[in-house]
Amino acid sequence: VAVTVAALEELVAIPSVSGDPARRDDVGRAAAWLAKRLEGLNGRVVPTAGHPLVLAEWLGAEGAPTVLVYAHYDVQPVGEASAWRTPPFEPIIRDERMYGRGTSDDKGPMLAALGAVERLLEERGSLPVNVRVLLEGEEEIGSPSLEPALLAHRDALQADVAISADGAMWSAEQPSLNVAARGMLAVEVSVRGPSADLHSGRHGGAVLNPLQALAEILATLHRPDGAITVDGFMDDVVELTGDDRFEIAEMPFDERAYRAEVGSPRLHGQNGYTPLERLTARPTLEISQIEGGGRYTVIPAVARAYLTCRLVPDQDPQRIAAAIARHVLGRCPDGVTASVEEVPGGIPAYAMRRDHPALAAAEEALRAVYPGRRVLRTRAGGTLPAAVLLRRALGLDTLLFSFSSSDEGFHGPNEFFRLSRLGEGTDAWARLLDLLAEKL
Amino acid sequence: VAVTVAALEELVAIPSVSGDPARRDDVGRAAAWLAKRLEGLNGRVVPTAGHPLVLAEWLGAEGAPTVLVYAHYDVQPVGEASAWRTPPFEPIIRDERMYGRGTSDDKGPMLAALGAVERLLEERGSLPVNVRVLLEGEEEIGSPSLEPALLAHRDALQADVAISADGAMWSAEQPSLNVAARGMLAVEVSVRGPSADLHSGRHGGAVLNPLQALAEILATLHRPDGAITVDGFMDDVVELTGDDRFEIAEMPFDERAYRAEVGSPRLHGQNGYTPLERLTARPTLEISQIEGGGRYTVIPAVARAYLTCRLVPDQDPQRIAAAIARHVLGRCPDGVTASVEEVPGGIPAYAMRRDHPALAAAEEALRAVYPGRRVLRTRAGGTLPAAVLLRRALGLDTLLFSFSSSDEGFHGPNEFFRLSRLGEGTDAWARLLDLLAEKL
Repeated sequence: VAVTVAALEELVAIPSVSGDPARRDDVGRAAAWLAKRLEGLNGRVVPTAGHPLVLAEWLGAEGAPTVLVYAHYDVQPVGEASAWRTPPFEPIIRDERMYGRGTSDDKGPMLAALGAVERLLEERGSLPVNVRVLLEGEEEIGSPSLEPALLAHRDALQADVAISADGAMWSAEQPSLNVAARGMLAVEVSVRGPSADLHSGRHGGAVLNPLQALAEILATLHRPDGAITVDGFMDDVVELTGDDRFEIAEMPFDERAYRAEVGSPRLHGQNGYTPLERLTARPTLEISQIEGGGRYTVIPAVARAYLTCRLVPDQDPQRIAAAIARHVLGRCPDGVTASVEEVPGGIPAYAMRRDHPALAAAEEALRAVYPGRRVLRTRAGGTLPAAVLLRRALGLDTLLFSFSSSDEGFHGPNEFFRLSRLGEGTDAWARLLDLLAEKL
Repeated sequence: VAVTVAALEELVAIPSVSGDPARRDDVGRAAAWLAKRLEGLNGRVVPTAGHPLVLAEWLGAEGAPTVLVYAHYDVQPVGEASAWRTPPFEPIIRDERMYGRGTSDDKGPMLAALGAVERLLEERGSLPVNVRVLLEGEEEIGSPSLEPALLAHRDALQADVAISADGAMWSAEQPSLNVAARGMLAVEVSVRGPSADLHSGRHGGAVLNPLQALAEILATLHRPDGAITVDGFMDDVVELTGDDRFEIAEMPFDERAYRAEVGSPRLHGQNGYTPLERLTARPTLEISQIEGGGRYTVIPAVARAYLTCRLVPDQDPQRIAAAIARHVLGRCPDGVTASVEEVPGGIPAYAMRRDHPALAAAEEALRAVYPGRRVLRTRAGGTLPAAVLLRRALGLDTLLFSFSSSDEGFHGPNEFFRLSRLGEGTDAWARLLDLLAEKL
């Protein structure tokens, strides 16, 4: 593990921020660093239309199944630099935690996975299964180049199952496996009235204000309890079964602590569903932005809203975008015109088959590392594009096998990774590979 | 007039943009230029909390009434510089029009008024009435220092009536006098939910989105035809009389040309009122800005709207702000909190008594300069803070006697002033002063 800690420090010090064009060379450096580390597995940097992939493989387990290990080596931007107590790309260890951007999401968990492969090869000279490695450099910007790259390298990526080191356990205290994630969709609504911004003194009273029309349209998207009223939006939603509700009810959730965390005066959402059901297994339609006009006496020519949805099985992003468009256009008053555009990059929901043998293997591996603890199945409210794209392009199921914890501040300042997880993660990955040799 | 054209060129070349802190010295230079021009009337620069006033007076008409001439020497910002065909502060004459920022609003009309005083003094050695001059440097930023300055210089500003060179005739072809202006009020609405911006994946489904709540609140402000639904908003509105409607119906208005000008697909507003009634004599409540969130998967912590109203007699800005606050707070759903703040600077509507002798004198003066033409009484949809403040601080009625035309692009690019108006304005002001000596 000491070796891996030193390696993690090196890798975190490379600011591989995929969303920052000024960091393009750093992203490339991180890829080269990983290809070098994977030298013994034929590690190599493979170009894409955007940031490169790192591919590697060890295929010496004749007759055994093949596992595709997925992770990403790019990281989020640092955001507000002043909110960081220590420089984000100068990793520092305090209280058994390593602080730095990308420590938890997901350079630490990625090196735990790679560390298991290295250790098995060192100890045994072989692996129990064939292993292919796929490391992506664009996860934090929505994986725009991943699907074409997967299709281009289909043959080099053939496997029986994918295992992602990315993701997060529900909490640090509770071993868990993420078995589902919601999809994502964004649409942009524009409402246009006069041909130019108008002075409210000269023109107020004669024209319909696009911001007013937009507010009136957006006010029709939800019922007072939060239920979505858009015709067609809920048509394909698979209703929660008793098993689903039971699985969700087992996830630890302290409503009072949650309310304190988000700071809302009270929780809000559709009647008939628990907060956790609404957070993980029900779709959403949020107004993420409204813009238009200014702090002066203006009637703006245009008003815009950016709507984002989280989707559940079996909602199709394009059908949902079309339903929203019909709703908006159908409620657009005379005197203005509305348009709705789907933002590219919509992703459907992802769910792992609950009877997939890799899931049972993963539970057993976690129980071995965390003896005497139950292993929960949890669901993510967010979106996992890679899992969806691996299924779509390669037909693979993806097991999410992550050793980061949801409280580790990824995407925010002072991100950290519990160093105990490096050892636990390495042990668990090694165990998992052994188990997959039997169970797949 | 040739002298005045040269003077106007000089004055327009001074970029006295009151809203631009970098132009503070230029605003002072314009004040000094005017004080120098008014040397023979004891012209002087008088400091205020903001940009200075220029005061002057000629009080040699013993027993005659006293007239306070009001104008402003500050100008609007130039806005989009690339939209100007010639540099805004390098006045240029083309087709009998002078182009440049402030030519029409209101340096040209101001010099027409001052030119009349100068000419009468030159020709006769005296004026028919006592004249005080009050030139303001903050009209374009809402006259924040005017009222305290009026009160501080009460004695030096005593008069029987004020006459403003600022304002605008309804059209260049039609002699007209503005007899009313709407008031103005702005309030800021804030809706707060979670204590920080939330990720829509992790938190979507559990909290009420402040932008959604804001849209739902704002959607309740109007009926579909545009009528304002805010309880108490209309309580003090003086209904239009038959005379009012007749006066408004006489204003030239081509609905088709207007619709083409604003570019809206159709006109919009409360049933039972003509477009021109709604534009000039009915109150408005506009959403001038909504802001909150961003173009990413966020549930924002705060959503804000900037609402601006145009007011009519006898609406009181503070009472209207309170009515809006009650409406918003009363419709704020659980799960978020709302607050409403009145923006300082609210101004009630202004109307000139239709039987004021100065109005009759002004009509006669215009008929003398534009023989054979009817003189219309018109109403401005915008706001005239100076007229309201002169009444409130000094008890004065203000006659609006302007020679700019509403098509001269003030507040936009390529502002211009018809040079014919300089001579006509000077003649009309001279005639008016003579008439006021008889009629006041």
